[in-house]
Amino acid sequence: MSKGKKVVITGVPGVGKTTVIDASMEALKAEGVAYTSINFGTCMFEVGCDQGIVNDRDEMRKLDQDVQRELQKTAAKVIARITDNTIIDTHCTVSTPAGYLAGLPSWVLEELKPDIIVLVETDEDQILKRRLSDTSRSRDMEGYVAIKDHQRYNRYMAASYSMLTGCTVKIVRNLDFLLENAVSEMVELLR
Amino acid sequence: MSKGKKVVITGVPGVGKTTVIDASMEALKAEGVAYTSINFGTCMFEVGCDQGIVNDRDEMRKLDQDVQRELQKTAAKVIARITDNTIIDTHCTVSTPAGYLAGLPSWVLEELKPDIIVLVETDEDQILKRRLSDTSRSRDMEGYVAIKDHQRYNRYMAASYSMLTGCTVKIVRNLDFLLENAVSEMVELLR
Amino acid sequence: MSKGKKVVITGVPGVGKTTVIDASMEALKAEGVAYTSINFGTCMFEVGCDQGIVNDRDEMRKLDQDVQRELQKTAAKVIARITDNTIIDTHCTVSTPAGYLAGLPSWVLEELKPDIIVLVETDEDQILKRRLSDTSRSRDMEGYVAIKDHQRYNRYMAASYSMLTGCTVKIVRNLDFLLENAVSEMVELLR
Repeated sequence: MSKGKKVVITGVPGVGKTTVIDASMEALKAEGVAYTSINFGTCMFEVGCDQGIVNDRDEMRKLDQDVQRELQKTAAKVIARITDNTIIDTHCTVSTPAGYLAGLPSWVLEELKPDIIVLVETDEDQILKRRLSDTSRSRDMEGYVAIKDHQRYNRYMAASYSMLTGCTVKIVRNLDFLLENAVSEMVELLR
Repeated sequence: MSKGKKVVITGVPGVGKTTVIDASMEALKAEGVAYTSINFGTCMFEVGCDQGIVNDRDEMRKLDQDVQRELQKTAAKVIARITDNTIIDTHCTVSTPAGYLAGLPSWVLEELKPDIIVLVETDEDQILKRRLSDTSRSRDMEGYVAIKDHQRYNRYMAASYSMLTGCTVKIVRNLDFLLENAVSEMVELLR
Repeated sequence: MSKGKKVVITGVPGVGKTTVIDASMEALKAEGVAYTSINFGTCMFEVGCDQGIVNDRDEMRKLDQDVQRELQKTAAKVIARITDNTIIDTHCTVSTPAGYLAGLPSWVLEELKPDIIVLVETDEDQILKRRLSDTSRSRDMEGYVAIKDHQRYNRYMAASYSMLTGCTVKIVRNLDFLLENAVSEMVELLR
């Protein structure tokens, strides 16, 4: 049984992560390269539903810390069992009122064993503009410095993920008007 | 038995960490929120005295590395057993002649299991001025760049603490003339 | 049986790491301080040859990931058994087409247990010039920003090494025309 690549794709809100993933998947499909795409949070939620722990996503946030960690671990195990090439869509670091939270803490990494962690990044100013023009989501508004700090923190965090698991950390810049560059870098990585 | 929060508070010498902690504890007390405050180094020293390993703090520095690590571990276990809300006053990274040293290495983190690590930061220039005007302590004088590097290194280090334990990392800025801002941020975090 | 120091020395290509190591070893020898110098990659290769897994260095790169990790672990064990003072010449982070790779992942660190990790750094512009004038090696040419990112990434990565093992991280600047400064810093560290 051959094993596929496990590629974790991350980026701060407004960086255009979904756009890059979707366009890359399409390009890869045209080349005959198949990837299964999984959202880590959705996978955790489905595991929680299956186990009768939660009924809706709001309940996820209110879970006891130990229960939440067990759900994370189980979700990571479920994904690790997939033998296809897999993209895991999640956050490197989550910015919460209590500070930065590791999106992939050690107990998740040890189950998931990713091959590559991608940090989709762009200029802070572009992220700001994209967030301002996105009327569909009501996000807590962060300033330029907070976004810059968050993008940097993702790099620090990813370094420790790499130390623990041996995965590589690839930075893909998704600049305005240059989506095709980001996509072609991503396709080369995933091919 | 309900469990209290374990909040590690760190900052480079001269950042005003003690001032922020003291003012925050006072404000919290006025609100009826109780916190036990522990200095990690003092706790280690007390454990060392109890075990008959040391008699004064100078001896702490000269201990064999393995003995020192055992003391760290025991101190972390002692603090972990506290069921109250606890503030742990320590260093994120210590700047030594042999380089940066992790204030909370993995064997400490695994016992301590902190909920939050706070990095109290401020402008390097202000730290320089505070150190220069502090005649009570004879500190090795560092320049602007060394202080900046140290504050940044604390961020990198804290990211790896977060990966291992799942704690959050909160940055609290303690700017000149704006102590009340730092205190109100801290109080909101600890409340 | 007394145990020597284990000092890992790292730096991006073109930083002048070998020059600093050689000059430091010579100065230490003149003082009567003995160090064994080991290149981690060479040690891995020798282990691979001994075990009949590879015949030349090109084959090293094409090994299955699991086999490669076992070789890394065995090499780390071999080095850990040395009782002399030892310099381990390796990379903190390797820049690969798939992204940054940890030079010392957790399974290597747990065997090696280094005392100090040295990051030899210099100005990005000097590294660029040194690489451009080095006609003996055909390196993939990186720009100023890529070199800066790589040097910074080494710092992030080293922080996580420090968290796991308790080693210190020392930054030694190897500036143009100031080799003797870098060497004297290194000698003080190793003495």
